[in-house]
Amino acid sequence: MAQKRYLFTPGPTPVPPEVLAVLSQPIVHHRGADFRPVYEQCLARLKDICRTSSDVLLFTASGTGAMESAVANLCSPGNRVLVVSAGAFGERWIEIAERYGCDVAALRYEWGEIPRAEDVAARLTELGDARAVFLTHSETSTGVVCDLRAIASAIRPSGAHVVVDAVSSLGAVPLEMDAWGIDVVCSGSQKALMTPPGLAFAAVSEAVWEPEGRASSPRYYFDWERTRKAQDILDAPFTPAVSLVAALNVALGMLLDEGLGAVFDRHVRLGRACRAGIKALQLELFSPDDDSSAVVTAARTPAGINAAELVSLLSERLGVQLAGGHGPLKQTVFRIGHIGYYDIFDIVTSLAAVELGLKQLGAHVEPGAAVARALEAFEGVPV
Amino acid sequence: MAQKRYLFTPGPTPVPPEVLAVLSQPIVHHRGADFRPVYEQCLARLKDICRTSSDVLLFTASGTGAMESAVANLCSPGNRVLVVSAGAFGERWIEIAERYGCDVAALRYEWGEIPRAEDVAARLTELGDARAVFLTHSETSTGVVCDLRAIASAIRPSGAHVVVDAVSSLGAVPLEMDAWGIDVVCSGSQKALMTPPGLAFAAVSEAVWEPEGRASSPRYYFDWERTRKAQDILDAPFTPAVSLVAALNVALGMLLDEGLGAVFDRHVRLGRACRAGIKALQLELFSPDDDSSAVVTAARTPAGINAAELVSLLSERLGVQLAGGHGPLKQTVFRIGHIGYYDIFDIVTSLAAVELGLKQLGAHVEPGAAVARALEAFEGVPV
Repeated sequence: MAQKRYLFTPGPTPVPPEVLAVLSQPIVHHRGADFRPVYEQCLARLKDICRTSSDVLLFTASGTGAMESAVANLCSPGNRVLVVSAGAFGERWIEIAERYGCDVAALRYEWGEIPRAEDVAARLTELGDARAVFLTHSETSTGVVCDLRAIASAIRPSGAHVVVDAVSSLGAVPLEMDAWGIDVVCSGSQKALMTPPGLAFAAVSEAVWEPEGRASSPRYYFDWERTRKAQDILDAPFTPAVSLVAALNVALGMLLDEGLGAVFDRHVRLGRACRAGIKALQLELFSPDDDSSAVVTAARTPAGINAAELVSLLSERLGVQLAGGHGPLKQTVFRIGHIGYYDIFDIVTSLAAVELGLKQLGAHVEPGAAVARALEAFEGVPV
Repeated sequence: MAQKRYLFTPGPTPVPPEVLAVLSQPIVHHRGADFRPVYEQCLARLKDICRTSSDVLLFTASGTGAMESAVANLCSPGNRVLVVSAGAFGERWIEIAERYGCDVAALRYEWGEIPRAEDVAARLTELGDARAVFLTHSETSTGVVCDLRAIASAIRPSGAHVVVDAVSSLGAVPLEMDAWGIDVVCSGSQKALMTPPGLAFAAVSEAVWEPEGRASSPRYYFDWERTRKAQDILDAPFTPAVSLVAALNVALGMLLDEGLGAVFDRHVRLGRACRAGIKALQLELFSPDDDSSAVVTAARTPAGINAAELVSLLSERLGVQLAGGHGPLKQTVFRIGHIGYYDIFDIVTSLAAVELGLKQLGAHVEPGAAVARALEAFEGVPV
């Protein structure tokens, strides 16, 4: 039999068959009557998912495109900005802001640490003024999900715009854009939103549309004004990836039908199950051992076992694709994504594969313990 | 019966069922063993299609993203550039270059005119120096395909980089990047390449990779250096639209199997057939009445018949989506795209629909003449 393939990375993520089926439908014109109702519904659903009454701007791009759009549309060269960084994606904000000539102050944590609201507030006071603070809601490289509500509230008094990379968090963990006073939410289609990669979004609050908000940085494809003007009349400034938009619309409908509360509970329980299994394998968790860590579980391999080797073995011999460690964590950490179209049996398969892989690499593991503990944790105390 | 739908716009274009089928396959990880061979083959095939030995950089974006990448990577603020513009997409080059602070000289033609190599040469001499000349190979808004070879050769002595928007021409009409001395070819997936919208490419010649070629304009997502470095090791700097890449790979394979020569001949004959039909309907051609016009045929509606109304009627009542006129041509011109997965029976359907639509709007048409002349022209003198 051809090897079955399992995708358990924190992006791209498994896509439901109903969503895949949409992708194989004939192409329609983006300005035609076949596309407009789909586009309108998709844009409305994106607002529901972001929990905002503001416009969600849609770009054909990876999530990073939406991040860059935030820097380019909010910042002029020389603007002072604060970036909170505790992993690879926090570093990405720094790189982008530097590329745009911002005066970048970085509040850096060790990779794996959880950013604290009081540190952000203190740093802002120290800086005196900052045009924007760039945050990572779920740091996919470490498995840390920060307390975005508390951090946004700590930023509020400074008047700086609150800009969040929610690429791997949107649709996985609670994010209340309007209620928490977030100015910009950047995200992408290929994580918890159960859609293939290729679409990025920037939800932009009314506050940053003020005329004084217009930055002088050059931009065209990612220009917010142009995109909003087009979306206002259900148009797009450039041919969008129509098949991906149709797919996203179906995926968002599935999430909203499930109910965001139920979706978030599911992710919490998947995280619990994954951590319980990892601990049953006698592995050390790298990501936090608490319910906030509902997106991706990162673990260290036992001494003497190379994480990159484990990930390759699982992919090549067993057909199970996990994610390796990012940058400096490549040799020691592997990650199991549990977002999107993902249930407890995907956790079971992930853990069973890790168990087999560790055994093949010579580690001692107690057979079946990981799966048993995972099932218990999933079924245990309700969220 | 549910109304059958026909897409005859010059982008997006009809996509072959084999390509649509690929889109519904399960998602694979962009750094996994399932994706790499597809990615490698797709990047190699893009080189074959661009007729270049240089790298073709792949972006998840609309074609405009590739155009912006050319401006951002080649130009620093204040750089003098020349844009040759004879339609909506020429104007786009001007807008982008102005956004990036270039000192933009425009060689403008009336919409529908064909740019001339001698005008470009004269304008360059007048300017004294220009860092780059931005061209539109196929001006989708008018149906004009310029003589790119002659224009590139006229630019050569000036030392300016030759940058071409080949969004609707690549894969439809001959384009010899290396042989014609083109420095940058920008294109997208959703036109003659028979793939849904969502992927853009910039083929970048070795000449512009010289260190002195690095411009100071801010860029991140569309940075060529970062993209090339990643592609060199079959990686991508940001999660690419993996399903679209897999689809593009199949579509490019189909074009290369047909043979580029045969593909170009087919488009010439489709253009001939379309023009013959339009003339049989007693309509005035807006696009040139010669074999260069192989991408899109633009025609004027008869006096008293609004083109936008005709296009709506065909779409709503008959299920046939043509393109309207761009900007100032909206009320008077409609366009039939004939690129990509397109054969003579698509021309027949387009013309039959226009015939029915004109009749319904009260125009006098000779029944069946358009289709008859189209078939004759298609079968006539070989290319």
